[in-house]
Amino acid sequence: MIIQLKTDIRQSEHVLLHRCLDQMEIPFYHVDTQMAKYLVCTPQRDFDIRRIGHIEGIKDVHRVSGPHKMVSSNWKVGRTSLRFDDGTTVGPNDFTLIAGPCSIESEEQVVKTVLELKKYGLKFMRGGVYKPRTSPYSFRGLGMAGLKMFHEVCRAHNIKIVTEVMESEQIDEMYPYVDVFQVGARNSQNFNLLEALGAVDKPVLIKRGISGSIDELLHSAEYVFKNGNEKLLLCERGIRTFEKAYRNTLDLNAVPILKEKSHLPVIVDPSHGIGIRKHIEAMALASVASGADGLLLEVHETPERAATDGQQTINFQEFESLVSKTRCLKDVLNK
Amino acid sequence: MIIQLKTDIRQSEHVLLHRCLDQMEIPFYHVDTQMAKYLVCTPQRDFDIRRIGHIEGIKDVHRVSGPHKMVSSNWKVGRTSLRFDDGTTVGPNDFTLIAGPCSIESEEQVVKTVLELKKYGLKFMRGGVYKPRTSPYSFRGLGMAGLKMFHEVCRAHNIKIVTEVMESEQIDEMYPYVDVFQVGARNSQNFNLLEALGAVDKPVLIKRGISGSIDELLHSAEYVFKNGNEKLLLCERGIRTFEKAYRNTLDLNAVPILKEKSHLPVIVDPSHGIGIRKHIEAMALASVASGADGLLLEVHETPERAATDGQQTINFQEFESLVSKTRCLKDVLNK
Amino acid sequence: MIIQLKTDIRQSEHVLLHRCLDQMEIPFYHVDTQMAKYLVCTPQRDFDIRRIGHIEGIKDVHRVSGPHKMVSSNWKVGRTSLRFDDGTTVGPNDFTLIAGPCSIESEEQVVKTVLELKKYGLKFMRGGVYKPRTSPYSFRGLGMAGLKMFHEVCRAHNIKIVTEVMESEQIDEMYPYVDVFQVGARNSQNFNLLEALGAVDKPVLIKRGISGSIDELLHSAEYVFKNGNEKLLLCERGIRTFEKAYRNTLDLNAVPILKEKSHLPVIVDPSHGIGIRKHIEAMALASVASGADGLLLEVHETPERAATDGQQTINFQEFESLVSKTRCLKDVLNK
Amino acid sequence: MIIQLKTDIRQSEHVLLHRCLDQMEIPFYHVDTQMAKYLVCTPQRDFDIRRIGHIEGIKDVHRVSGPHKMVSSNWKVGRTSLRFDDGTTVGPNDFTLIAGPCSIESEEQVVKTVLELKKYGLKFMRGGVYKPRTSPYSFRGLGMAGLKMFHEVCRAHNIKIVTEVMESEQIDEMYPYVDVFQVGARNSQNFNLLEALGAVDKPVLIKRGISGSIDELLHSAEYVFKNGNEKLLLCERGIRTFEKAYRNTLDLNAVPILKEKSHLPVIVDPSHGIGIRKHIEAMALASVASGADGLLLEVHETPERAATDGQQTINFQEFESLVSKTRCLKDVLNK
Repeated sequence: MIIQLKTDIRQSEHVLLHRCLDQMEIPFYHVDTQMAKYLVCTPQRDFDIRRIGHIEGIKDVHRVSGPHKMVSSNWKVGRTSLRFDDGTTVGPNDFTLIAGPCSIESEEQVVKTVLELKKYGLKFMRGGVYKPRTSPYSFRGLGMAGLKMFHEVCRAHNIKIVTEVMESEQIDEMYPYVDVFQVGARNSQNFNLLEALGAVDKPVLIKRGISGSIDELLHSAEYVFKNGNEKLLLCERGIRTFEKAYRNTLDLNAVPILKEKSHLPVIVDPSHGIGIRKHIEAMALASVASGADGLLLEVHETPERAATDGQQTINFQEFESLVSKTRCLKDVLNK
Repeated sequence: MIIQLKTDIRQSEHVLLHRCLDQMEIPFYHVDTQMAKYLVCTPQRDFDIRRIGHIEGIKDVHRVSGPHKMVSSNWKVGRTSLRFDDGTTVGPNDFTLIAGPCSIESEEQVVKTVLELKKYGLKFMRGGVYKPRTSPYSFRGLGMAGLKMFHEVCRAHNIKIVTEVMESEQIDEMYPYVDVFQVGARNSQNFNLLEALGAVDKPVLIKRGISGSIDELLHSAEYVFKNGNEKLLLCERGIRTFEKAYRNTLDLNAVPILKEKSHLPVIVDPSHGIGIRKHIEAMALASVASGADGLLLEVHETPERAATDGQQTINFQEFESLVSKTRCLKDVLNK
Repeated sequence: MIIQLKTDIRQSEHVLLHRCLDQMEIPFYHVDTQMAKYLVCTPQRDFDIRRIGHIEGIKDVHRVSGPHKMVSSNWKVGRTSLRFDDGTTVGPNDFTLIAGPCSIESEEQVVKTVLELKKYGLKFMRGGVYKPRTSPYSFRGLGMAGLKMFHEVCRAHNIKIVTEVMESEQIDEMYPYVDVFQVGARNSQNFNLLEALGAVDKPVLIKRGISGSIDELLHSAEYVFKNGNEKLLLCERGIRTFEKAYRNTLDLNAVPILKEKSHLPVIVDPSHGIGIRKHIEAMALASVASGADGLLLEVHETPERAATDGQQTINFQEFESLVSKTRCLKDVLNK
Repeated sequence: MIIQLKTDIRQSEHVLLHRCLDQMEIPFYHVDTQMAKYLVCTPQRDFDIRRIGHIEGIKDVHRVSGPHKMVSSNWKVGRTSLRFDDGTTVGPNDFTLIAGPCSIESEEQVVKTVLELKKYGLKFMRGGVYKPRTSPYSFRGLGMAGLKMFHEVCRAHNIKIVTEVMESEQIDEMYPYVDVFQVGARNSQNFNLLEALGAVDKPVLIKRGISGSIDELLHSAEYVFKNGNEKLLLCERGIRTFEKAYRNTLDLNAVPILKEKSHLPVIVDPSHGIGIRKHIEAMALASVASGADGLLLEVHETPERAATDGQQTINFQEFESLVSKTRCLKDVLNK
């Protein structure tokens, strides 16, 4: 059960509500986000909603069955759209393209990419400065110095930054330079990181775990929401299966399922999904057709020379084709 | 290596060719299909192609690396289109919809379905009369009696039948009533069945195994081709993974990969893929966008009362919407 | 529900029983095996067992919940032991080693292997004459000629033959020369083959499918039992997962689960499981400790020269060590 | 390549060595652990080892092919044994049982468990105070207060504590009360946590990821070693597959593979593996037979009332049986 509270709920009403819930032996959690105040209740058994419904200060009460609460589509009318300060939105009425290199490598690289993105009116650039790498001997990213440079260029061109944060200790330092914090597949169930991001007032894009279930992805988003941040994006990026013909099994089945179960926007990352440059476009188109609200793409001027993930990164020319085709497809689907 | 032979190759040229190959210690296999004659050679090491290239009776010689030979895209210019006697084609220039119930249940059912398919100009109806069922206590299909009835109705309306054959012994009996033999996911590596279908002059649609790799699907098609039947359709129908939110993981990554590796048409079955009625349309659209040459769909007047697979079968109204949207999408993609 | 019938049940009692079941609208199936007569009933709802319990000719009535019936441990006291004509048994009181090459290659090979097996008192030799191969260009086995030679040598030494049958058409021809019919992993859900083996009075060893669930393996055994053959062995041989460090994931979890759910003997094939020669012994020992009733092992005088599966086959010396260690382990576990 | 340095290497020798490596353009990393000093080199191409071998201060030089370096079995003679201050060892010559509840719940619980462990001479108790939980609404553990109590009881009885650390920020606070830091399956690729644990001088037990490959587990251990901590334990705990008959697929194939590839001790956790109480013993025995150096077990006085993981936790009586049988088995295997 989710109880939406009025933002001007009085202390006395709070006390009354708590007392009622305690009397009915219903556990509850305060969820105060950037946008609203809620109580999430996890009752063990059925009860009469009228016993609390009359309390002033309550805006609405929703029964939410199933394990997910705040992220569930059960209680919210319509799907969620994220809104940035400059009016940019991400959600069901948009088709959001987030593109850029796997790793931030140099100022020249960022400038060239930004100019390319602006050609097609993109508003978000991705790029990693902290790279989770399987081997400790691999390139790990440019770190904070890279992020500051990345931010300077992007700010000058009015482009928003999506970049991965790897642990809670990094959040404060990164905060001024980041527009969307990305949680990578390997950290999809790093619950401490998720909780820490609950205290942030900037959006969080959560990738599905390498072999994460759809259910687990929703629970991970629930962690962030419960801790106060409801600006969330879910991201399908491929799962690990027995098939060896490509890098990961991009699981587009997840798109309609996530949209059914949750009100949050769903982004697909075909680059990490199939992981083969020449097939990124086909999977990008399929992602759009499956109902995705946006795409996360790896783009580089010369993928052959990219510091990381070159084999799955498209070049500027391929990017132009992809943007044009996916937008065209989205237009048809919207009709 | 694939040697294409002229159809009028003389016996003496044959003998000469064999002698050359024997001298070079190159194993070879005769492949005589409905359309052409080939020799598939599997040399252990490199050799000088000129030593055979001069022989009269040879039409062309192609180097084909990799484990797949006849089904490989390496030797054939352009992708294959299947051609039926009445001029109907299935392939890269078509968008083939094959629809119908999981199981053939009654004449009334077949008639209603056929009329529905004809409304939208479909030329193929699917429907099982031999049903592979996990439990021996489940409904197993109407068998030959059902097939004959199915055929009678379809012939009257000029609709072609796609239906599953479960073992080689059934082929002869089924032959007069079938237009496309379907090999189910559980028989995808039933090599005896595949070989027996190599002797048939009607098309074979091979489904990917339940946890079959893309490579194995191509090998299974190779079995049929090598034994003389090059009328082949590959079908992606979902693989088995850890995810429990849906029936199977429809693996659309397989579509561009299959089209890269093979010249054969690729059909997608979203019904068995995601296996959830309300999400069939999203996955059908995604299949089209991924590049599929056609769709295999479970359709029933009243899915709630279907003998089998009702939970993943769409009704006539949903089918109308799906046909219209997928065709519209295909049109845009073709531009 | 399983109704055990007396072997001398009278026709009139049969009629009465059918009438009772029909009146209660309970579907039922006759199962007449080499050993006994049963009726398997699949009622849709609960009913009063006393309405049939009084009928003469009934030996016993068992409620069996769950999808599996005849193979379920629910109705049978104790675990099953297979008994051969010469008194050899396979089951919970034995520890059965079945060993031999992947493929039968020559008489010399068979003779050498048989002599090796007899050194350690083994009673079963495995060896394929029909080999399911992913590629149609691979070695496919010696066929019937090989089987006859195999049988001649084995009969002379009083060794029983376990060999794979690939389709129902082969059964009659193979029958005189086979002691245990093996159903391979790729045929684990070849329902026509399973049904045909139900009509045979020799034991059937069914391998779990390549990505077959434990539940499916039990259903496949149910197919054979329901069609009249209750001489069954279940075989775990590794499943397909994402892990690439070995051939298959030998799933020893399946052993205690199969023994809990079914009364049938459980054999483990560590050769196909881990698929790496130097680790076969470790997995064989683990199989024994997990509770397996026997092992299926690939052994060859010179694995390096084996026609098939050499990389996972142990030589005679390694075999001696393995036999000695596994038997020693089994003795300790039996205490 | 791994260069072992003498502990008393002089600064001038260091400089000389660096200069040589720089001249040959070989990247290198200093690894200074509690026990020794190393240089890990990752040359791109072959080179003449004699060009550095003569430098004083070098103890030994090992070529190590493959992606893993410090954790690889390539450079170390014999397998590693961890040694605690009181002389307790964990490794190939021991059989280490680590047992205890999933979650620390109360002092009474800890006392009872400790007394039970001492009956059988165990030296390690497991117990979580920080619990990674899929849902934010689940019990999360007693935290630091619980750990301090846990430590007090254990210290009084000379029992060592194995407990999970969830993020690098927790390490300092937990340090005084922990003997072995456990990295859970969900944090198996939390590279920041792994690096932070590299700075600790206490052992780290790393669990394989939920769908982590064996290769990834070794890379995760490499992270810790490279950052200075060579006291490492690898732990197999089951992987995620399609099979639904149990919780996870305990992958005992990993045991011989890990022992082949790495010199580090291998522990198996059958409780999280199969995840079914009545089958823990069978899988524990199989783990021992597969070659495990120890077991991690969930034990609780009354599993039915355990705060977490009750369904896979054995009670004291079952534990007694398991200890006795596994030790007996280990004795036989050691002969």
